[in-house]
Amino acid sequence: MTRLEEVLAEAAKLVEPTEPERSRVSEVAVKLLSACRQEFLGREGVVDVTIEGSVAKDTWVRGREEVDVFVHFTPSAGRERLESTILSLGPRVIAGMGGRHWLRYASHPYVEGAVEGIRVNIVGCFKTEHGRWISAVDRTHHHTEFVRSQITPQLRRDIRLFKGFLMGCGLYGAEIRVEGFSGYLSELLVISHGGFVELLKSASKWRIPAFVDLTGKVRREDALRLFPNAALIFPDPVDPSRNVAAAVSKTRLAELILASKLFLRDPSIEYFMPEAVKPCQGEEWRGTHELFGVIFRVEERPPDILWGEIKHTMKGVSRRLVKEGFQVYRAAAAQSGDEVLLLFELSSLSLPPLELRIGPPVWMDNAIDFARKTLTREDRAAGPWVEGERLYALFRRKHVNVDELLREWIGRGEVAISRELVDSLREAEILTSRSGLIDRIRQNEGFRIFLKNFLDGAATPIRHLAKRC
Amino acid sequence: MTRLEEVLAEAAKLVEPTEPERSRVSEVAVKLLSACRQEFLGREGVVDVTIEGSVAKDTWVRGREEVDVFVHFTPSAGRERLESTILSLGPRVIAGMGGRHWLRYASHPYVEGAVEGIRVNIVGCFKTEHGRWISAVDRTHHHTEFVRSQITPQLRRDIRLFKGFLMGCGLYGAEIRVEGFSGYLSELLVISHGGFVELLKSASKWRIPAFVDLTGKVRREDALRLFPNAALIFPDPVDPSRNVAAAVSKTRLAELILASKLFLRDPSIEYFMPEAVKPCQGEEWRGTHELFGVIFRVEERPPDILWGEIKHTMKGVSRRLVKEGFQVYRAAAAQSGDEVLLLFELSSLSLPPLELRIGPPVWMDNAIDFARKTLTREDRAAGPWVEGERLYALFRRKHVNVDELLREWIGRGEVAISRELVDSLREAEILTSRSGLIDRIRQNEGFRIFLKNFLDGAATPIRHLAKRC
Repeated sequence: MTRLEEVLAEAAKLVEPTEPERSRVSEVAVKLLSACRQEFLGREGVVDVTIEGSVAKDTWVRGREEVDVFVHFTPSAGRERLESTILSLGPRVIAGMGGRHWLRYASHPYVEGAVEGIRVNIVGCFKTEHGRWISAVDRTHHHTEFVRSQITPQLRRDIRLFKGFLMGCGLYGAEIRVEGFSGYLSELLVISHGGFVELLKSASKWRIPAFVDLTGKVRREDALRLFPNAALIFPDPVDPSRNVAAAVSKTRLAELILASKLFLRDPSIEYFMPEAVKPCQGEEWRGTHELFGVIFRVEERPPDILWGEIKHTMKGVSRRLVKEGFQVYRAAAAQSGDEVLLLFELSSLSLPPLELRIGPPVWMDNAIDFARKTLTREDRAAGPWVEGERLYALFRRKHVNVDELLREWIGRGEVAISRELVDSLREAEILTSRSGLIDRIRQNEGFRIFLKNFLDGAATPIRHLAKRC
Repeated sequence: MTRLEEVLAEAAKLVEPTEPERSRVSEVAVKLLSACRQEFLGREGVVDVTIEGSVAKDTWVRGREEVDVFVHFTPSAGRERLESTILSLGPRVIAGMGGRHWLRYASHPYVEGAVEGIRVNIVGCFKTEHGRWISAVDRTHHHTEFVRSQITPQLRRDIRLFKGFLMGCGLYGAEIRVEGFSGYLSELLVISHGGFVELLKSASKWRIPAFVDLTGKVRREDALRLFPNAALIFPDPVDPSRNVAAAVSKTRLAELILASKLFLRDPSIEYFMPEAVKPCQGEEWRGTHELFGVIFRVEERPPDILWGEIKHTMKGVSRRLVKEGFQVYRAAAAQSGDEVLLLFELSSLSLPPLELRIGPPVWMDNAIDFARKTLTREDRAAGPWVEGERLYALFRRKHVNVDELLREWIGRGEVAISRELVDSLREAEILTSRSGLIDRIRQNEGFRIFLKNFLDGAATPIRHLAKRC
């Protein structure tokens, strides 16, 4: 047995559900299906109730079981009826089984809950003609059917390996927080390559944008035109006009390419094991990281909505910092409880005392205005002079510290922050001292782990490599 | 009389030589010509001796008189005979007139000196067929003839005004130190536009590259192809394949455009008056300029050679600083006596403690090498992480101060310095503290004036504007 085969055999044990887990899942699935049928069938517009997702396909990873029940409505029922039916009856079903439910997603109506310790979702969809999809989840049943029609026992094992690999490398999940690989995309990738190792061999040679087509009908050039911003393009076999990999960011795809290379070169079980990171104690902060943190409270909201806002705000702050002259080495965000932490590493937490202002070329009409205004300004430090065809001048800055500047921008609306977070940001704590940041972060276990990872800064696949260096 | 006419009338008094000056110049010119004829005519290869330059054309600016005598050799005499004849007999002529001589230029053989307080040059050239030029100054006699054939009393006045304007704005002179407008170019510009005001009106609307043609035979597109890097193109009427304005830098041309706009908008005599800048006392250094100076000794050399080296070195240091991560706001050089000062203004005199290193894209073969090497380096501060398709990492810097770094680069030959200045640079003083710089610069009057100008930082034409703000 080669080293690779040994590792895969070991990994298979990590990702294959145990027999007790299988029975527990199937018992809950059967009971939930039957309870849903009882509750929904016969209601106006409801035409079917089915099990979908990884349980229906038998592709879930050990310990990650999740039962999805889909309630199918006839298109004429309309969105409102679908929504009201799901949101009123879904919780009742879960409660009737002694479970609890906690989230009603706003973007698409579904109910999330737990029954006997297993995550369950009750989702409403329309049973439409092929291609005449109404809601975002109307294709799901066809996805299930497609995967079932293609799968073999070997592929099933390899799908679980690939999902486990993605989890171990921090790449699993299409949610906005992760921007990684969905379950369905993982299944299609393994199916299209005929196996886990074949997929990794191929992925290790990808360039971005990458293109994989299972239908054999889509040309690469057409796909690139159709999805110009996608890092990875995988036309949905159920609907080739849709990119299954739309949620995958360039960074996550690059991390998969890197992880594939690293794993194939030196296979190791660690790539299948999500790290247990110890919370930051403070002493990991060696040397001279110039970090500043922004901590604010948020109200409970569907994660994809909240994370859309968080990422938009983080990018907005970064862009504003760069525009002002800061060099932003990196930025990251964490959510823990009702608190969000944005963490930025800069080359320096303060700007130089003087600012270089680039004026117009001398041949522009406003060149003389620029010269005249500069000369009369109190904060002029030098200039204007001519260099090449342009005017330049140096001005004294009023504020140089990042925290003062950020406060000012937020107060004046001069930084792109999600509208929903503006109030939170106005109240935010802005921490720039090492001791201040560490003391504050100590109060939140989730942030301590996040800070530890941030300080180390290595991508997850590279941390696996580090252990073997 | 309009304001413009008043100013021009006043300026004319500044630039027109007085009668006593005219007689003095003519007397020296006649005596020098006759002495040169006596000494050179009859020597092997010598065919003629003439007066050239601004005295021959009667276009010199008051107080800037300079008598140029050209000794014409037949082409068959050869460069060596020309050189040896000029360098041996030229000084003898000047000495015979009770004058003194001080420089023998290496690039082209000529003798510079002073007779009765007037600068004189004795230059050797070849009398060739038109277009079959051998040395760089063989066209000069034809230039003189051309200007004489075109000039009128009004143009003569306007040429003097334009030269005075260039001098008052720091733009006169084709030497490498200035990179401005030669006397011949100034004459052609006025002739081609029919006058000083007409020229300024046109210049105030120029875009760079600018193109002026007196021959009417050169098309703009052809000129741009022929002189792709020129800021200003003026085909020589004596030889249209040569650009008379080749020495004019983009910055100097832009300053002329700006000065023309400023002067026409608000005419003032100051534009014709070179400033008398008071030396820096120290208190002009307000606020927080982050300056560093490099002072080194140089041996006496023809200015164009020395200044070529100085500028090359200054640019080399700037480029190296930028490459290392410094932001160079501006750089300038001064020579005073046998000392040269390079002065740089940076956003900061030290680099951030950590350095962002941009690694390869993950799909490159060396991506794993980069990751592996980074992980094992002692100066790793964070990473490598993936952002987009590339790897990044943060490293601790060993040196952060500009003076230590520059010393190191000079020592290791890691900065582009003119070969002839390497030894001087190794011995250079590198001054970074405000008090250190001011104390050192106090010792050299030329540097004190230069520093004062540098701190103010306004281009000369803009300083004229400042007085009127």
